[in-house]
Amino acid sequence: MNIITGGIAKPKGFKANGIHCGIKSSGKLDLGLITSDSLTVSSSVFTKNSVKAAPLMISQKHARNNKIQAVIVNSGNANCFTGSFGLIYAERTASLIGKLLKIPKEDVIVASTGIIGKPLPFKKIQKSVSVLVKGLSIAGSKRMAEAILTTDTKHKEIAVTITLGGKKVTIAGCAKGSGMIAPNMATMLGFITTDAAISPKMLKAAFKSAVDQSFNCITVDGCMSTNDMVTVMANGFAQNKTISKPGRDFNLFTKALHFACLDLAKKIVLDGEGATKFIKVNCLGAQNEKQAHAAALQIANSNLVKTAACGDNPNWGRVAAAVGSLGISKVTETNLRIKFSPFDKKEIHITVDLNIGPAKATVYTSDLSLEYVRINKRYN
Amino acid sequence: MNIITGGIAKPKGFKANGIHCGIKSSGKLDLGLITSDSLTVSSSVFTKNSVKAAPLMISQKHARNNKIQAVIVNSGNANCFTGSFGLIYAERTASLIGKLLKIPKEDVIVASTGIIGKPLPFKKIQKSVSVLVKGLSIAGSKRMAEAILTTDTKHKEIAVTITLGGKKVTIAGCAKGSGMIAPNMATMLGFITTDAAISPKMLKAAFKSAVDQSFNCITVDGCMSTNDMVTVMANGFAQNKTISKPGRDFNLFTKALHFACLDLAKKIVLDGEGATKFIKVNCLGAQNEKQAHAAALQIANSNLVKTAACGDNPNWGRVAAAVGSLGISKVTETNLRIKFSPFDKKEIHITVDLNIGPAKATVYTSDLSLEYVRINKRYN
Repeated sequence: MNIITGGIAKPKGFKANGIHCGIKSSGKLDLGLITSDSLTVSSSVFTKNSVKAAPLMISQKHARNNKIQAVIVNSGNANCFTGSFGLIYAERTASLIGKLLKIPKEDVIVASTGIIGKPLPFKKIQKSVSVLVKGLSIAGSKRMAEAILTTDTKHKEIAVTITLGGKKVTIAGCAKGSGMIAPNMATMLGFITTDAAISPKMLKAAFKSAVDQSFNCITVDGCMSTNDMVTVMANGFAQNKTISKPGRDFNLFTKALHFACLDLAKKIVLDGEGATKFIKVNCLGAQNEKQAHAAALQIANSNLVKTAACGDNPNWGRVAAAVGSLGISKVTETNLRIKFSPFDKKEIHITVDLNIGPAKATVYTSDLSLEYVRINKRYN
Repeated sequence: MNIITGGIAKPKGFKANGIHCGIKSSGKLDLGLITSDSLTVSSSVFTKNSVKAAPLMISQKHARNNKIQAVIVNSGNANCFTGSFGLIYAERTASLIGKLLKIPKEDVIVASTGIIGKPLPFKKIQKSVSVLVKGLSIAGSKRMAEAILTTDTKHKEIAVTITLGGKKVTIAGCAKGSGMIAPNMATMLGFITTDAAISPKMLKAAFKSAVDQSFNCITVDGCMSTNDMVTVMANGFAQNKTISKPGRDFNLFTKALHFACLDLAKKIVLDGEGATKFIKVNCLGAQNEKQAHAAALQIANSNLVKTAACGDNPNWGRVAAAVGSLGISKVTETNLRIKFSPFDKKEIHITVDLNIGPAKATVYTSDLSLEYVRINKRYN
């Protein structure tokens, strides 16, 4: 596998763009688009929050047959808790793009991110979509990656290549995160494109595995969003032999897909609101993976552990208290072992061995800083 | 019921004291004692954290027969994760007090609060206990209330009287909180004394009900401590007819006990680390009380809701996202109703109606401020 430069439109047959349509008063890009030259096989994972934004409800319908051709995203407004108009606007956004691209609206996925509860300024989107479509290009990847940001300070993209049966296959992606990041799918926006030829069933299996070990292993503040989703689109332009069963090609593809997803997930944590530290929490010696994940997550979401990390303070009492708060009866002073990497570094590792079984898990998080509070006091 | 001045030693037959024995480098009081002139009927609730501090393990044994006569507490050191020496020191502390008071060590409860993982400076306690015992008095209530504090900025005490069958019965208490406050018993130190005559069974029932509706309904940072406990002692000196069954006396007593516990719990929230707001979260319209409590708690523990409160920002999108993250399928945009009291006040109310049932619950919390992060970055 090779890491290459470029973003979401790097795989063959994809284009992207990002523009400012007027939703953000800052003048920053706020409307992005990804298209494929032909219908793609796709797989999507949506937030488990029972309060779902309008675009997610529309996109869940459109994604159901695992075939899509375009993704449109606005930032600055979540189009959540916006009533029947929210749903109408989300659907109309898909229609507008469908008409311009001459594809059914059902092949368009819509995503939004930003403030909850304010009406989506649909007219601004309506007026801008033709410019957005006209500007589609391979070089538009970066603008797309910028158009989906909210409190993020950096755009996040990745591109990798692998060789499958002599054919070069590219996997690329972009993502946004920053606040309201907690695992349990899909707590951010993440878009992945690939020119691999792969069956819907195999793509779904590869994506589930990749997402479980990446986007579902990060947390910034333990808050789960109403809006977020991760989508992969595969258009087959690489002309590899279609991956339709487990085996070598499937494994190579899944590994590369996981790498891309984990790279984006880590970038989300590194750019978490106010983050001054990147924290890797390893839990070893659990009875099963679920328990290991829960323990790592409990530590990663502890405000006391996160403020201690911010203060370069390897306070293992807080780590012990966090793990103990799960109430697993065998997790006691006698069994528990806690190790820290040097705490005065930008990246720190917290390793907890429960000593009650063979399972392990890793969760990534950031620290809780003064800046996190400052951002979230003023962000509307 | 009348609220009166005074603290933990206000009920007849109790005394208290607090001194500086040298655990805290600040010179503040760090060793406190409550005694009764005779053996009391008692009830205690301990943290559900599976990592338990040494004094809790000793106290759980001593509390098992529901008879105690004294409580000794040190602050500045949690005596948690301190190995076999921690247990030995906790037990010896009970022995020392037992000898001085001429009572069995099994009638003494020991509590500690402070930093986890550092050896308890037992010699400092050993040298100071005779002074501590000599200074016992009714007026020592305030010093006791001060001796149990850590990052608290104020001592917290309450005293009330009721009349049962013509006899005046007094209930009093003191508590400490500040950080690591999350419900699920007992996430702070709380001590209640009363001169009521009451059977062990009835005291336990009254205390459980009072604690569930007070100390278990507060959260500061969602972090559960390894050390905390709440204890009630009843010595019967009021000479009321012993409460031994449900009825009018039991109800009056339980109501007053609940009032005292809730008063202390609210004071803990008001004095939460860095708190600038007192937030009352009401959940209505849930299918059952457990669900209502979980929903209120999810809101109260959301860093995004808490920072918004700190910024005088009634951001109901964050409230909706927090409730939705529980994944209760019927909790959707259509059902959910959210109301705020004016947000520019010191005390604010967030009311969420799930509209799916008759049950309700209330949780009390504080906001997440810059000062919370500052305190917890530097606190060791």
